[in-house]
Amino acid sequence: MVFAVSKTSSGREYKVRDISQADFGRLEIELAEVEMPGLVSCRSEFGPSQPLSGARITGSLHMTIQTAVLIETLTALGAEVRWCSCNIFSTQDHAAAAIARDSASVFAWKGETLEEYWWCTEKALDWGPGGGPDLVVDDGGDATLLIHEGLNAEEEYERSGKLPDPASAGENAEFRIVLGILREGLLADPKRYRMMKGRLVGVSEETTSGVKRLYQMQANGTLLFPAVNVNDSVSKSKFDNLYGCRHSLPDGLMRATDVMIAGKIAVVCGYGDVGKGCAAALKQAGARVIVTEIDPICALQALMEGIPVLTLEDVVSEADIFVTTTGSKDIIMVHHMKKMKNNAIVCNIGHFDNEIDMHGLETYPGMKRITIKPQTDRWLFPETNHGIIVLAEGRLMNLGCATGHPSFVMSCSFTNQVIAQLELWNERGTGKYEKKVYVLPKHLDEKVAALHLGKLGAKLTKLTPAQAAYISVPVEGPYKPPHYRY
Amino acid sequence: MVFAVSKTSSGREYKVRDISQADFGRLEIELAEVEMPGLVSCRSEFGPSQPLSGARITGSLHMTIQTAVLIETLTALGAEVRWCSCNIFSTQDHAAAAIARDSASVFAWKGETLEEYWWCTEKALDWGPGGGPDLVVDDGGDATLLIHEGLNAEEEYERSGKLPDPASAGENAEFRIVLGILREGLLADPKRYRMMKGRLVGVSEETTSGVKRLYQMQANGTLLFPAVNVNDSVSKSKFDNLYGCRHSLPDGLMRATDVMIAGKIAVVCGYGDVGKGCAAALKQAGARVIVTEIDPICALQALMEGIPVLTLEDVVSEADIFVTTTGSKDIIMVHHMKKMKNNAIVCNIGHFDNEIDMHGLETYPGMKRITIKPQTDRWLFPETNHGIIVLAEGRLMNLGCATGHPSFVMSCSFTNQVIAQLELWNERGTGKYEKKVYVLPKHLDEKVAALHLGKLGAKLTKLTPAQAAYISVPVEGPYKPPHYRY
Amino acid sequence: MVFAVSKTSSGREYKVRDISQADFGRLEIELAEVEMPGLVSCRSEFGPSQPLSGARITGSLHMTIQTAVLIETLTALGAEVRWCSCNIFSTQDHAAAAIARDSASVFAWKGETLEEYWWCTEKALDWGPGGGPDLVVDDGGDATLLIHEGLNAEEEYERSGKLPDPASAGENAEFRIVLGILREGLLADPKRYRMMKGRLVGVSEETTSGVKRLYQMQANGTLLFPAVNVNDSVSKSKFDNLYGCRHSLPDGLMRATDVMIAGKIAVVCGYGDVGKGCAAALKQAGARVIVTEIDPICALQALMEGIPVLTLEDVVSEADIFVTTTGSKDIIMVHHMKKMKNNAIVCNIGHFDNEIDMHGLETYPGMKRITIKPQTDRWLFPETNHGIIVLAEGRLMNLGCATGHPSFVMSCSFTNQVIAQLELWNERGTGKYEKKVYVLPKHLDEKVAALHLGKLGAKLTKLTPAQAAYISVPVEGPYKPPHYRY
Amino acid sequence: MVFAVSKTSSGREYKVRDISQADFGRLEIELAEVEMPGLVSCRSEFGPSQPLSGARITGSLHMTIQTAVLIETLTALGAEVRWCSCNIFSTQDHAAAAIARDSASVFAWKGETLEEYWWCTEKALDWGPGGGPDLVVDDGGDATLLIHEGLNAEEEYERSGKLPDPASAGENAEFRIVLGILREGLLADPKRYRMMKGRLVGVSEETTSGVKRLYQMQANGTLLFPAVNVNDSVSKSKFDNLYGCRHSLPDGLMRATDVMIAGKIAVVCGYGDVGKGCAAALKQAGARVIVTEIDPICALQALMEGIPVLTLEDVVSEADIFVTTTGSKDIIMVHHMKKMKNNAIVCNIGHFDNEIDMHGLETYPGMKRITIKPQTDRWLFPETNHGIIVLAEGRLMNLGCATGHPSFVMSCSFTNQVIAQLELWNERGTGKYEKKVYVLPKHLDEKVAALHLGKLGAKLTKLTPAQAAYISVPVEGPYKPPHYRY
Repeated sequence: MVFAVSKTSSGREYKVRDISQADFGRLEIELAEVEMPGLVSCRSEFGPSQPLSGARITGSLHMTIQTAVLIETLTALGAEVRWCSCNIFSTQDHAAAAIARDSASVFAWKGETLEEYWWCTEKALDWGPGGGPDLVVDDGGDATLLIHEGLNAEEEYERSGKLPDPASAGENAEFRIVLGILREGLLADPKRYRMMKGRLVGVSEETTSGVKRLYQMQANGTLLFPAVNVNDSVSKSKFDNLYGCRHSLPDGLMRATDVMIAGKIAVVCGYGDVGKGCAAALKQAGARVIVTEIDPICALQALMEGIPVLTLEDVVSEADIFVTTTGSKDIIMVHHMKKMKNNAIVCNIGHFDNEIDMHGLETYPGMKRITIKPQTDRWLFPETNHGIIVLAEGRLMNLGCATGHPSFVMSCSFTNQVIAQLELWNERGTGKYEKKVYVLPKHLDEKVAALHLGKLGAKLTKLTPAQAAYISVPVEGPYKPPHYRY
Repeated sequence: MVFAVSKTSSGREYKVRDISQADFGRLEIELAEVEMPGLVSCRSEFGPSQPLSGARITGSLHMTIQTAVLIETLTALGAEVRWCSCNIFSTQDHAAAAIARDSASVFAWKGETLEEYWWCTEKALDWGPGGGPDLVVDDGGDATLLIHEGLNAEEEYERSGKLPDPASAGENAEFRIVLGILREGLLADPKRYRMMKGRLVGVSEETTSGVKRLYQMQANGTLLFPAVNVNDSVSKSKFDNLYGCRHSLPDGLMRATDVMIAGKIAVVCGYGDVGKGCAAALKQAGARVIVTEIDPICALQALMEGIPVLTLEDVVSEADIFVTTTGSKDIIMVHHMKKMKNNAIVCNIGHFDNEIDMHGLETYPGMKRITIKPQTDRWLFPETNHGIIVLAEGRLMNLGCATGHPSFVMSCSFTNQVIAQLELWNERGTGKYEKKVYVLPKHLDEKVAALHLGKLGAKLTKLTPAQAAYISVPVEGPYKPPHYRY
Repeated sequence: MVFAVSKTSSGREYKVRDISQADFGRLEIELAEVEMPGLVSCRSEFGPSQPLSGARITGSLHMTIQTAVLIETLTALGAEVRWCSCNIFSTQDHAAAAIARDSASVFAWKGETLEEYWWCTEKALDWGPGGGPDLVVDDGGDATLLIHEGLNAEEEYERSGKLPDPASAGENAEFRIVLGILREGLLADPKRYRMMKGRLVGVSEETTSGVKRLYQMQANGTLLFPAVNVNDSVSKSKFDNLYGCRHSLPDGLMRATDVMIAGKIAVVCGYGDVGKGCAAALKQAGARVIVTEIDPICALQALMEGIPVLTLEDVVSEADIFVTTTGSKDIIMVHHMKKMKNNAIVCNIGHFDNEIDMHGLETYPGMKRITIKPQTDRWLFPETNHGIIVLAEGRLMNLGCATGHPSFVMSCSFTNQVIAQLELWNERGTGKYEKKVYVLPKHLDEKVAALHLGKLGAKLTKLTPAQAAYISVPVEGPYKPPHYRY
Repeated sequence: MVFAVSKTSSGREYKVRDISQADFGRLEIELAEVEMPGLVSCRSEFGPSQPLSGARITGSLHMTIQTAVLIETLTALGAEVRWCSCNIFSTQDHAAAAIARDSASVFAWKGETLEEYWWCTEKALDWGPGGGPDLVVDDGGDATLLIHEGLNAEEEYERSGKLPDPASAGENAEFRIVLGILREGLLADPKRYRMMKGRLVGVSEETTSGVKRLYQMQANGTLLFPAVNVNDSVSKSKFDNLYGCRHSLPDGLMRATDVMIAGKIAVVCGYGDVGKGCAAALKQAGARVIVTEIDPICALQALMEGIPVLTLEDVVSEADIFVTTTGSKDIIMVHHMKKMKNNAIVCNIGHFDNEIDMHGLETYPGMKRITIKPQTDRWLFPETNHGIIVLAEGRLMNLGCATGHPSFVMSCSFTNQVIAQLELWNERGTGKYEKKVYVLPKHLDEKVAALHLGKLGAKLTKLTPAQAAYISVPVEGPYKPPHYRY
């Protein structure tokens, strides 16, 4: 796949939907900055010393207004940036336009095909002949995956002369595309990913699903570079995953369907941080919420909040709204959807799109798909003429149907990202970080939170030295042992 | 003002934004029908006997998808319908298109000027030479006002030869337009409104603000025809006003600004049904809510829910979000807005647009208005360079910035409308209704509620005759005395 | 039944559990006064003019600490008072002791038999040879009932010489006792109730159940004197019934059973004001709440709050906690209780004790009753050896197992009582009040609420004259039309 | 101090308030068993093999009904048990009586003096000449402290001949008593604690404050035996600390003061698990909650829940209710209390009694203490004649003024205790556990939660092998990485 790439007057490459939306994007970026005190504070604290000067950063993370503020924080600290989205529906085109015009190379638009998606990812990693990026900001691990798979392919090719075979991906349509892209790339430049690996200092990963992949690679010994697990900063996962979803789940439901949530029965599959946020939002809006869980501890938490824990089978024909948040796969299958009420709403807010059986829907004999509007489809079962409404084609509905998490909570997450990037870059020659997965130290985690208090008018209490001694913590923190759960 | 009016192939008039959106509108109307069991039930109960056959109905009520289902219920019962919106921003253009194409004359589009707005209202009342409508569905009372003012003008003109003088409206820009329209109309046909009055059977009024006007006219003895106060059906005001706003306020905030509600300080001016819904929504989303009230009873209700009651002055410089719900006027003035934090959000969800001092903003020396996107403006005070964000130009933000209340709750309201229209029409010759304001009897109110239970899986308990006797109610209801407050 | 009646040194009669608890009672009364700003304000506003001077008031209302503050407000305004409780379990003995020692004649103790209960009621009405009270404060209408039945009996006796026949009450054990008492009384003084009627100015009634009786008497034309329906003051029923129960239901459950509410399934029978308060409390504590309702409007309200509406039969074998709030009778029958889970908790918070089928339990063959502690009994079904736990023998559990509603909310209710008593007394010679049921005018209702705002730090907004004119209300209120539902 | 110790007919020692309350205690224990499925399940799973046979267990943990079920689970598994309470006010005398009569040696009563308290602790550790207990169940670490201090004293005495000097404790009145007891004990038997240490296999510690002490000892290298940190089992701290307090805080407030929580301003000092539970309870009851925090992460959590974070100084003169939950010391000092509103309520729900400055109150010149009832005191400042109400003399108010956490949540905690005791005992000879602090492995934590699901009707979803592989967990769990925060 070859796309024409545009260039700004200064020569920066981009491909976005409509560069003329840059002014609109800029206006919303300016509004967002007021809501993102952590990032703005990074600019004033670190900007003068330009600590990221010389660093090339590739980002693969939803190209939204909030991400635009992140990108411009990285550039304000001296970095050069190339960016793509990590989801085909999550780009906000006006945000992409503003960044492309003003700050960084962007390859992203709302409603990419999967081929386009991976083309964008490859483009964001392609820094030209000098090798790839120094640092990667990843969300879900697709940039990291492409690098690892690219390296595998190059080594295999060198060993055996075999090119990647898309057919080997079987039913996994997306991986077929990845292999195709790698095949083409290999023919063009058989050392690209090895050059990339040589240069790359590390990655900071945004989300649960990407972190899971990193720990698997660490366990397998295949991780190529240090990784910072940003997701498990408390100031990320206990805020973004929980309060972000509490905000953006109903937002997505409302924008996509205008359905009244009050009075409805809603099933939330999974009661982790994301599920907790979703369940809270639905309950508060007046729905009767039911949770499905595999983990007895999370199940008992739901029960203590007055939420019954049942299996999907128990409730599939009674519920009105279904949300998957598990991070696992094959949660709502076509045989479930067939039993649902007419116009039941089915959506996913987990990172990957394999929680809902879209393949089963697409291949169901006689199935009719009626697109109400983009990212809102009614799938009509031929036997019953009952339809179900699937949002964002089973992908992240809050980003596909609305605008994702709001700025304030993303400021918490992205301040962790900035700090992680700084840490990786500052320690690039010191050997401090091995090819392992790291979490930021607690004092930085507390710092991120602290940067967000003033905006909300909060005042912290100061420990006296006597109190600090009594509870055995430094006066300035960190205040909790590592195992503390908040 | 003269607009070209389009006609369908069957000769029905309309003026909408884009008739090609009719298919999209139809899809959403079909979804909405599944959520509006009261209206669908009216169709099946009354449709066969065509009770509204021969009735001409003019509606002035937000031209949304939900209203489309109302209109098509009225036509399914035999009525002929002309419709306009009751707010310049509330029309959903695809809904208007579908109705214009398929069912009724529509004069409405999102983003009318005030001149266009009153032109549409007049057009919806204009049934040609045979006089006006038999029945009016009104929301806020603008159609009713136009008829009353029109009649006044005609009588004054006959008496004194004086035409309405727009200049007499002083600073009231909107009333200046009304007078202008009446002046033009009077020149064209000096008996139009008297003919209309002669034919008109009655009006059913949707909302608190319109009802207030009706009671004032009843008190003054100027009411021209019977009116049904639909707003004060319990199944309307205790649901639409309360739960509708609980849903659509955050929806409007999110679509307009994407602001994170959690952690913010939000001021709700007024704690009536609308204010209660707004405060509940904001609180549940994690805001710290403060209420302003004039009524000590409502104030004490807020306190019992953990919400402080203060004056606007007390909190104007600390809060992040301001919502007016009072039904009164001059609530948030420009001198208040000047003291607000940068990017404070100011919006109104009361029926009329005089709660927020838009005139004060517009005429403030040096004020700069930056339109972020339609219905979302940032107003920049020159002294401080601080901006405030005003939604929907001070008009109903849930309809201007989002899609209004969801279908299910509107089904409750609109089923009351259908019943009111039926009652007025059925009793048109009986003298049952005088030129007064009536509320629907409680058994009909209970019926409306009952029609909405099945969709939510509810099962009522049946009184035994012994129990019914013990509490002195009929087994089949009504179950409560008139003064019962729910 | 004859009890020895004690006398204070000043000659005031009383019969309480233990006069030595008066000091303890006084301490709690003093704490309560700080929480009852409405009553304290009545003392300072009206006390100096002694408006109740000369008035004899009989009260039949739970003899609690809060009631003590009411009684001493009445005496501070000049009244002479005799008091009994309106429930066999609701007296707080230390409150009774303090009042008996310091302020009024009291005949009440916690754990009366029914015979003792009616003896106390008669005693509270017995002002000696000069006739009965001038005014009655009633709660549930038992004092009113005794007067009406007494008069009936006297008239029947005069007419036919027939004495009341306890056997005629059939299975109604309590009415058998009433007839027995009237029979004895009639033999002692055959004109007592006619003298009482002659003197009596009116009654103010506290609760829904008593009000229902009054409206029935009004409808039948048998009401003997004017009655003020205090219950339907907004500042009473929308606060005491709702927020009072939200507080005292979990209090009663905890004190009686220490059961963890979180995670449990709780059934609330009835979703009026009391049911709404109970459901809210249980939901907030983490229970899954189910409501049973006969009224479709109340049912739809429950649904909008996320609470399913089912029949008792649907859930009887799954739920853990059952609460009756209907004001009707025969709600939870022994055949229901037999199907419940082991140790299901069954309780009533409605005024009368006929919502739960205690008679069915008591007469069930082989039933075993195990008293865990006073007002907490386990009833063991012989077939299953499963027990259910019944609180307060089916009577008001919040008063039987805890201390009833807290002071602040009772201050709202009781300030209405004081105002009602003042109104009846002030207008005793004017003919303003007929033998009908009246609600206090809205400006007094608003005043009661206003008296409670300062304690909670609230500040009201003042209408400008222009705003007041615009919404057609006086600047000083009342602010709402009579039909307004809050 | 020497108390007469009673003996059962079987020769078991005890000292309780009133052995005749044993029947009442037994009834409540039987009710509690139905609510404690984890403990009951331990009895049926492990009882037959008598795994604790031969083990002597000393417990120092609130002697409540729930603890009674724990004790009888330990004895059902074969252990011999001696018990004391870990708080002077927390014993339920009927629970102590039932256990003393039926199952174990108990030395505990509600309202011990500090001397009595430490006498009881020593008594519970005193198993006679054969040495001390094999295992300790500790709550707050007082038994552990006594053993460590006892050993220190013996070693010092052997080294230098010096006896513990109570005067050396300075102002710490409680430690003075400890030293006094050790002094007496040393004179009687100078090797007691060394014998105890020799025998002791380990301790399982219940609460945050005790765990903090253990980690300090581990860090100092002074820990004498292995310790299991039961507190940090997720199924303990995320349930007992959070949901237990959510239940028992309002319970304690209501029983002690009957205050209406709705409408009040409540300050919660500390927003850890306990603080989160307290804040949730108060908010749900209608209070306006304010949190004080030192930790920016916890502070940001409060803000996201709509709770402002301020300092105590900011709000001390406006709030009505103050609750300390910090685990630190010197939180509410007498100079704070002096500024509070009349009848402000001050209480502590943290483990130790040094959060509220009771010493400051007691020594304030002219202070007057009025005991309303046991554990509810009004302290009157002489300057203002304003009083504040202090609950449980600054000790755990939920146990001092109510009955502590409810059975169900304690079943989670205590099942962890049983498992911890089993683990320590089973591994006593294996060297698996060093003199360190251990947390139970996650699969046992999950097991504890799982044992509590059935009672609440929950059904878990089962992972398929493919799903388990995809998310890299075993089908049967554990399901989460160690750092997961729930």
